[in-house]
Amino acid sequence: MPFDSLDDIRTFCRDLPKGDRLIAELAARRQQNLTKPLGSLGRLEELAIWLAEWQGRELPRLDRVTVAVFAGNHGVAARGVSAFPPAVTAQMVANFAAGGAAINQLAKLAGAELRVVPIELDRPTHDFTEAPAMDAGEFLAAVNAGGRTVPEDCDLLAVGEMGIANTTVAAMLCAGLIGGAARWAGRGTGVDDEGLGRKRAAIEAALKCHHDILGDPLAVAAALGGRELAAIAGAVLAARQHRIPVLLDGFVATSAVLPLARLGTGALDHCRAGHASAESGHRDLLRELKLQPLLDLEMRLGEASGAAVAILLMRAALACHNGMATFAEAGVSDATG
Amino acid sequence: MPFDSLDDIRTFCRDLPKGDRLIAELAARRQQNLTKPLGSLGRLEELAIWLAEWQGRELPRLDRVTVAVFAGNHGVAARGVSAFPPAVTAQMVANFAAGGAAINQLAKLAGAELRVVPIELDRPTHDFTEAPAMDAGEFLAAVNAGGRTVPEDCDLLAVGEMGIANTTVAAMLCAGLIGGAARWAGRGTGVDDEGLGRKRAAIEAALKCHHDILGDPLAVAAALGGRELAAIAGAVLAARQHRIPVLLDGFVATSAVLPLARLGTGALDHCRAGHASAESGHRDLLRELKLQPLLDLEMRLGEASGAAVAILLMRAALACHNGMATFAEAGVSDATG
Repeated sequence: MPFDSLDDIRTFCRDLPKGDRLIAELAARRQQNLTKPLGSLGRLEELAIWLAEWQGRELPRLDRVTVAVFAGNHGVAARGVSAFPPAVTAQMVANFAAGGAAINQLAKLAGAELRVVPIELDRPTHDFTEAPAMDAGEFLAAVNAGGRTVPEDCDLLAVGEMGIANTTVAAMLCAGLIGGAARWAGRGTGVDDEGLGRKRAAIEAALKCHHDILGDPLAVAAALGGRELAAIAGAVLAARQHRIPVLLDGFVATSAVLPLARLGTGALDHCRAGHASAESGHRDLLRELKLQPLLDLEMRLGEASGAAVAILLMRAALACHNGMATFAEAGVSDATG
Repeated sequence: MPFDSLDDIRTFCRDLPKGDRLIAELAARRQQNLTKPLGSLGRLEELAIWLAEWQGRELPRLDRVTVAVFAGNHGVAARGVSAFPPAVTAQMVANFAAGGAAINQLAKLAGAELRVVPIELDRPTHDFTEAPAMDAGEFLAAVNAGGRTVPEDCDLLAVGEMGIANTTVAAMLCAGLIGGAARWAGRGTGVDDEGLGRKRAAIEAALKCHHDILGDPLAVAAALGGRELAAIAGAVLAARQHRIPVLLDGFVATSAVLPLARLGTGALDHCRAGHASAESGHRDLLRELKLQPLLDLEMRLGEASGAAVAILLMRAALACHNGMATFAEAGVSDATG
């Protein structure tokens, strides 16, 4: 980090830093001795062990939690694929700065610092139905902007985005890397039937235009992606470098890391899906990536909002793991009587 | 409150206090003006509106949140239906007092006061395979103990329980009031196949012993219930009296309010299911009661632990509802451009 070329990223993904399995075993043993029936805290137990594994601490901490929200604009927006005008991206970035958006409230509640990173909002990507959205240099710049956003001493990172038209971009990445063409298109922020038709048409057109690069995950991420999605991928790579656990937000954030999953086995082992979005396509994408969402609240806002709510679950997992008494400490009989 | 007779409870449930629909409409209108696509916060929007309706405040608050955990012992425990000995109920109450249990950590994280109410632990209910678990007087005493636990100025109440053998009691109430006999029996804290067989046999025996009262929900709650379950019902009734919204915990807590749902239409309108427990039977019971769980984390601990985690979601809903800017305040274009 930073990455100097697409090959740099490929090399990194071939030999990824691993979690600490020994620490994970110690954390799992601790869970077995806490005053509760074995396994009765369900996924909260698994989350605590996963935090321990990536932080390399039997008693993990969540002292510094960062929510990173990346914003970008998209050439394909000109095709009428969104219910909102492109100007809203910058307006919402201003709303983030003023503290008025959902993510401001949720990050504060979760005890997280919020980092909002707009990336060249006045220079939308090219319309990918006609040309590559970004060239390699533009893509790398966005990846590295994402990587720079991650504090090295961060205990947990949540990633999300803002960008009018970017559910079209997310559907595009899924169509390009998984297949299934326009079935990935959904209603996004609330597009009508005509808009949904335009969304599907744009994806079909782009698949034809770029059919020769579909076997190359990073080429797809550049030509069919977006700056805020590239930044999310960069942040997730930086987190992996520093063994920082990551919570992904919804459909767009998850699609942004799909190229990484194609580059290296276990590339998303340090990630959990914060929630299942109501945006159609997200569940299928999560299944494809073998990610089980933590929450299912029919949210579809983006802005890292679902991931931010999931931070609360991480705090619940940690509170139990670090704070509970063991059977021996509490003088409670265990299941053997 | 307190209730002097079972008929007192029946009368109360025939004419229950209602939520404030006008305030709910105002809260719903507020949600429409906040800087997000309509409906994009999913269930967090509905939760905020529900809080507003029951608190009678367009901007609800969560200043005083109470977690009530009731504990009781059960004659049917002698039939070997649990993986743990009955002494564990009192040991866990001591663990609650010492601050070492899961609910201590979770209530603290959720900013809630924890009230633990053991009810005659040294006097287990009768074994309901042979005689009524409680007579009307014993049942009423437990109901009223539950009611007394609820502070009148409470903004949100979460209810849960501790009691070795009480998943057998919960399955018993479901079998008695819904039907389906022993299919409601599950593994509880981790009973083995033999124990599960004893659990089913106890339920079958009790259904025969008490077949003549199965049409009377309160008679069933007394004869086939338990003290901590009666207390939960009492707390939920007291909350209704003061229009306090309630989060239910898992299978046992939900079964405890099943008799109330049979006594009056909409008797659980002020309640939400905090989570879907991993205990078999809970999902079917939630479906029966038309309650949609907020969380699904494979938890099965009891102690109000699932409801306590759900308090965090209520805080998330409230933070967005009360703290976000409107489109007009933020200068953000809405979907009409």
